[in-house]
Amino acid sequence: MVYLDYNATTPLAPEVIEAITDTLKEAWGNPSSSYPAGLKAKNVISSAREQVANMVGASANDIFFTSGGTESNNWILLMAVQLFDFYDSAEDNNGHNKSSRVPHFITSNVEHDSVKLVLEHFKRKKIADATFVPVLHSTGAVDTDEVMAAITPNTVMISLMLANNETGVIQPVKEICNKVRNLKRCEGETKRIYLHTDAAQAIGKIGVDVRELGVDYLTVVGHKFYGPRIGAMCAVNPSKDTPVLPVLFGGGQERNFRPGTENTPMIAGLGKAAELVCKNLHRYQTHMEDVRDYLETQLKEKFGEGVCINGKFPASHRLPNTCNVSFTDQKLKGGEILRKAPSVQASVGAACHSQDRPSHILISCGVPESVAWKALRISVGRETTRQDIDQALQELESVFRES
Amino acid sequence: MVYLDYNATTPLAPEVIEAITDTLKEAWGNPSSSYPAGLKAKNVISSAREQVANMVGASANDIFFTSGGTESNNWILLMAVQLFDFYDSAEDNNGHNKSSRVPHFITSNVEHDSVKLVLEHFKRKKIADATFVPVLHSTGAVDTDEVMAAITPNTVMISLMLANNETGVIQPVKEICNKVRNLKRCEGETKRIYLHTDAAQAIGKIGVDVRELGVDYLTVVGHKFYGPRIGAMCAVNPSKDTPVLPVLFGGGQERNFRPGTENTPMIAGLGKAAELVCKNLHRYQTHMEDVRDYLETQLKEKFGEGVCINGKFPASHRLPNTCNVSFTDQKLKGGEILRKAPSVQASVGAACHSQDRPSHILISCGVPESVAWKALRISVGRETTRQDIDQALQELESVFRES
Repeated sequence: MVYLDYNATTPLAPEVIEAITDTLKEAWGNPSSSYPAGLKAKNVISSAREQVANMVGASANDIFFTSGGTESNNWILLMAVQLFDFYDSAEDNNGHNKSSRVPHFITSNVEHDSVKLVLEHFKRKKIADATFVPVLHSTGAVDTDEVMAAITPNTVMISLMLANNETGVIQPVKEICNKVRNLKRCEGETKRIYLHTDAAQAIGKIGVDVRELGVDYLTVVGHKFYGPRIGAMCAVNPSKDTPVLPVLFGGGQERNFRPGTENTPMIAGLGKAAELVCKNLHRYQTHMEDVRDYLETQLKEKFGEGVCINGKFPASHRLPNTCNVSFTDQKLKGGEILRKAPSVQASVGAACHSQDRPSHILISCGVPESVAWKALRISVGRETTRQDIDQALQELESVFRES
Repeated sequence: MVYLDYNATTPLAPEVIEAITDTLKEAWGNPSSSYPAGLKAKNVISSAREQVANMVGASANDIFFTSGGTESNNWILLMAVQLFDFYDSAEDNNGHNKSSRVPHFITSNVEHDSVKLVLEHFKRKKIADATFVPVLHSTGAVDTDEVMAAITPNTVMISLMLANNETGVIQPVKEICNKVRNLKRCEGETKRIYLHTDAAQAIGKIGVDVRELGVDYLTVVGHKFYGPRIGAMCAVNPSKDTPVLPVLFGGGQERNFRPGTENTPMIAGLGKAAELVCKNLHRYQTHMEDVRDYLETQLKEKFGEGVCINGKFPASHRLPNTCNVSFTDQKLKGGEILRKAPSVQASVGAACHSQDRPSHILISCGVPESVAWKALRISVGRETTRQDIDQALQELESVFRES
């Protein structure tokens, strides 16, 4: 078996498993308790918070642990709606008509469902309006000017993934943040436009630094970088530069912003996974890029014009581990290829989407539907070898020979 | 060191640690992926869902995994608000004035903060109204008739904890469910009143069965019964008898009701912890009751009229493991006693509350403030021995001698 779906999830690093199991056994106390069993757990959490913060260039105070990326994204978007309410109530006193105003979001048309479906829900419920700026067919990325042009007086947040999960294309988050920071807001407009990036697929593959990017909020997802199935919400300098509001209410954990008894073992694991990224990112990145490039060279060598690498645009940067390839001169669709090659564990797109329809992400990037049907997403990991690639390609060749 | 705060959290059972570590290593695939690594994880989750369902007399379909009790409680209450909206929009067509109606909740005045603070937030934001029915000073429990009398035309949910975390008093959930089921609703009233019980403290200590109780929704919290720091939301016969609506949006996991890539290892651990409860509840219960009763006998023997057992009412049932005791003829407050007896790991109340003020739960139960100040919550576990109790009492006696 060859696992080539590291964008769907990664195995846990051995050091992460060790951190989790040690914590399961040794630091099971309630972190809110003031006796030794509690303090031990509290210390574990503090260290992990530092480690996660270091990984994304943030301070420990900026990190709030969550159950995962879906919760982080939902939280940040719901928070932005509430921030608009605050702003809007203030405006209301000046005689503006409150009821006619709803907050406005800007995002792309290639976001993960935990952003896309939240904003669609907001639209349906008339909680907020949202503009889904399409990515360019020439870059797979949004155009910075188009994003800026989508800003309205009610725009409260721009939410853009840092790297796409299917094509690996890196979005111009930094450029957009720069432009938005320099924007002058007029009277009757939201005073600030908050910037959010879902860094789920980027962390552990490319350098991610909240201050360099210029974002206010960032989503961290453990299981995409050899960590556990929890996540974090990063708010840069919270309650000072970046407001934070809770959407859950309870026992006061995470400084009252995200209550619930802390999942200490998983938090310890997330910290360890972050530490590994801090230490070894360059090595991981170089290795994955080498193996992915080898894969693409071999694909071209074996299939020539019969393969098309989707999402590889001269003007865009891509994640070092992701190869989205369509076998254009084969009859088989992506899902069929995978069913006939059971030892190749890859996908046709996001794991949470059906494997039996063409990816809407590819179609949004301008890939023709007939080509999108024939696509596989192959994503390599820290331990993937050239031999793994050779084995997978042999298996695919044999599938095509027999079909 | 003696750990006597099993109501704050429990260590993980060795079998649970094993289930988690095995899953960390062996079933790390994305449960939504259709290749072997994904299917393995999916199977782990299915088994755990069965185990959790068995523990509370539910069907596997009734179980939705969450990040913990706080999320489950918040979800259920938010869902009830949305259910009222549905109902209310329908009524609206009949000419009723929609805007003047908000949903109404009934709860007790001794709930956990993850119910109490949610309902207070709803009230503050005018999202819903709530009646906090006070527990009787003679029972520590709500009076069934008082709960029924609090019902209004807009009542959408009654949410009552099954057992109190500080006194261990068991609430008459079953009786209330029975009465509510027999209630005829008139035109202009909510058609149904949904019943929710937060069973965080009851599971693993007493038998808990959703059908016997008659509830619609039940909250499960792993770390209170030697399981991991996640939980579940149980909805009895969902989408048929009991409506379920999502509050998070994303990748479609948990049948679209609770998205986010599943925390497979923790889910496996929750399943194992549930299996242990199913198998051994009687033994756990008998053992804990024996040790707790021994503790209370010894307290009376050593301190005579100088101790008062809070929450022990002739007319109420109590959890078998909980002893809330005030040292009435000592000068020291609860928090001071604990600081002077560092080898006794107990608490003065809920872990997430300050240990330096009298418990509002005790005061709500009619305990005078001066007595509440002097209270300790001592909660025993599956492995607590009479020797542990002797050691803790010796330590306390020595603290009192020196003060």
